[in-house]
Amino acid sequence: MNSRRVSVSARSVDEYRDSIEQLLRPLAARALESVPVPAALGRQLAEDVHAPIDLPVFRNSAMDGYAVQAETVVVAPVTLPLAGVVAAGAAGQAPLPHGAAMKVMTGAPIPPGADCVVPVEDVETDGASVTVQRGRTAGEFVREPGTDVRAGELLVPAGTSLAPRHIAALAAVGVAEVPVFLPVRAAVITTGDELVPAGTALRPGQIYNSNGIALAAALTANGVRVVSVQHSTDDPAQFRRLLTAATRSADVVFTSGGVSKGDFEVVKDVLQPLGGQFGAVAVQPGGPQGLTVVDGVPVLSFPGNPVSTMVSFEIFARPILRHLAGLAPAQSYQLPLLDPIRSPEGKRQFLRGSIQWSQDRHPAAVAVVSGPGSHLIAGMAWADVLIDVPAADTSLPVGTIVRVWSL
Amino acid sequence: MNSRRVSVSARSVDEYRDSIEQLLRPLAARALESVPVPAALGRQLAEDVHAPIDLPVFRNSAMDGYAVQAETVVVAPVTLPLAGVVAAGAAGQAPLPHGAAMKVMTGAPIPPGADCVVPVEDVETDGASVTVQRGRTAGEFVREPGTDVRAGELLVPAGTSLAPRHIAALAAVGVAEVPVFLPVRAAVITTGDELVPAGTALRPGQIYNSNGIALAAALTANGVRVVSVQHSTDDPAQFRRLLTAATRSADVVFTSGGVSKGDFEVVKDVLQPLGGQFGAVAVQPGGPQGLTVVDGVPVLSFPGNPVSTMVSFEIFARPILRHLAGLAPAQSYQLPLLDPIRSPEGKRQFLRGSIQWSQDRHPAAVAVVSGPGSHLIAGMAWADVLIDVPAADTSLPVGTIVRVWSL
Repeated sequence: MNSRRVSVSARSVDEYRDSIEQLLRPLAARALESVPVPAALGRQLAEDVHAPIDLPVFRNSAMDGYAVQAETVVVAPVTLPLAGVVAAGAAGQAPLPHGAAMKVMTGAPIPPGADCVVPVEDVETDGASVTVQRGRTAGEFVREPGTDVRAGELLVPAGTSLAPRHIAALAAVGVAEVPVFLPVRAAVITTGDELVPAGTALRPGQIYNSNGIALAAALTANGVRVVSVQHSTDDPAQFRRLLTAATRSADVVFTSGGVSKGDFEVVKDVLQPLGGQFGAVAVQPGGPQGLTVVDGVPVLSFPGNPVSTMVSFEIFARPILRHLAGLAPAQSYQLPLLDPIRSPEGKRQFLRGSIQWSQDRHPAAVAVVSGPGSHLIAGMAWADVLIDVPAADTSLPVGTIVRVWSL
Repeated sequence: MNSRRVSVSARSVDEYRDSIEQLLRPLAARALESVPVPAALGRQLAEDVHAPIDLPVFRNSAMDGYAVQAETVVVAPVTLPLAGVVAAGAAGQAPLPHGAAMKVMTGAPIPPGADCVVPVEDVETDGASVTVQRGRTAGEFVREPGTDVRAGELLVPAGTSLAPRHIAALAAVGVAEVPVFLPVRAAVITTGDELVPAGTALRPGQIYNSNGIALAAALTANGVRVVSVQHSTDDPAQFRRLLTAATRSADVVFTSGGVSKGDFEVVKDVLQPLGGQFGAVAVQPGGPQGLTVVDGVPVLSFPGNPVSTMVSFEIFARPILRHLAGLAPAQSYQLPLLDPIRSPEGKRQFLRGSIQWSQDRHPAAVAVVSGPGSHLIAGMAWADVLIDVPAADTSLPVGTIVRVWSL
């Protein structure tokens, strides 16, 4: 395995996140694929799409009504002979005889010679003629070609995460396929002799492996394609084998566990000799972190406590991954605390919180959910935000305004 | 086809939406399936899940350090003999000899006889003994079983849309599969002789069909499974055939077009004799609406202008569909207008708007995007909200506070 040294001298959350962003930013220039528009929902557009045609395509009626020449209905009421019907979808070549009216449906072509539409509500008809009840001026209820978008104009810019409204616009101009970025591909490797999969009976000292499943879910929810989720025991040879396979199939690798100060730290033991930078970020949970580039692939090593793993993902990886996927940044609010907080000096703390919503669904305040312990993964299920406690703050009374980040 | 009359006497947006919600609410009691937890992301939990085990499963260490009896380290510094190592995942049956210390990794079982952990930072060791630098009290850095969640306690309630944090908690207690609701199944039928699919060259009077693709995208984005997207010409026999197929495979059917006052209104012509209620809701766009129950399946008939179709979906269908999928309601804000608005009297108007964000990503104001015309589908791609103009307001100056709904 080749590796290059990466600079991880940073120790604050922001500095360490910047290091990770610099490492992952080149993934913005990843490969494209062309997909049919109906399958492009949620994908990130890779190139600007310009309208290939005008919209409206042709001059058409904004109403069900009667196409007339405005000059013939200046003085109303006035009765005009009915010269036929233009249906939506009709070729619409028959011109309007001077002084007559033609019935026209919404969206149907305005017959040549007509310059306004009298809505059906404002007309009385006996089938052979129509009586227009009020005067009209040229252009009324006529949609001119290109007034929505002109051929050649930018319709959807590169980088857009395609929502239903973009899909609608692309379909309306007849675009059949669009170039989208391939998602970032991630591999996950969890570590630890004590972890066993669900469905196994626990022996003494064993716990269920949640980090692999949880990281895969978090990656998927943030626009990343998870190509593999593997588990390694604390055997360095096994971890090295899984790592080699992961770096061959993924753009970025996430590991959990084995980064701390114990005697058996398989991730650190394997990656540090490859140039991996391991150390403590001034944060709780999620302090011990590692960052390595193996065969050109960034490897982010998170600590193994389940909450530490998830919080590490949220604060260090999620912002850049959402950016790479063209997704909006996570919501953030400043809210008053409903519970007092104590926090260790010199460490930024991310506590699990739950937003209290006002009656009209606006965030009003935040409660602390569960405790600060990095093992409280069940408690995290009850949270919907992380409460961001600055490193300098050690005691926050009820009512303190804090920043919270949506999970 | 059997049908029953539905009451759609409502004419305001809220009353009509209530009619639709009443019709769709029974879909909350739909079938379940059991899916593996890793595949359950974004699915809606159908039954409460209680923790089958305590978390933590066993008494374990919160730190890499040394397990001791607190009473032996009351007076510090004190040197204790080192009696071995407990690794994470070890069976951990060897008890702590009285007056000794055992090295213990984060998450590893606390050996019987120990009642606190001295962090590795606070200890000096020569390999045979450890010198504890400061006194400790019982319980420090010990995680007791069940302090995160106790066996039998509610872990994730029924109805939850499963986010990564729920997936993590379910995995941590060893739950392998969860019961989730089958998504609501929808069929889409667009109508109109003038509509052709992308990839076809337009003949005079023809336009591209965007409504089918756009409705399918909007349904998918709101947790609905789209089982079919079909197009019907204005031939009633064809529409009737497609409708029959749709009601056999879907829980709800959406149609577009053919509901207005023209001569060829295929949807109204077929559905009205089946008990369908067609009429105008006091809204722009999206006024002409139809609601029918065919063979027990609700059929929502939207007007065919592309913006009318999308806005109808947003205001009438999306709230109940998101509720049925366990998704949070669409975001709504009250923001000052950056552009003046004129609005027709007596009709609630939904204009396309674009939020201006503050530097810290909070909504600060809203600009009007594109015009009010219900054909301006390209312009809708530039919007991110609908601006909700009350029926009574006809002229809103710049700075007026308006309610906006996220698209």
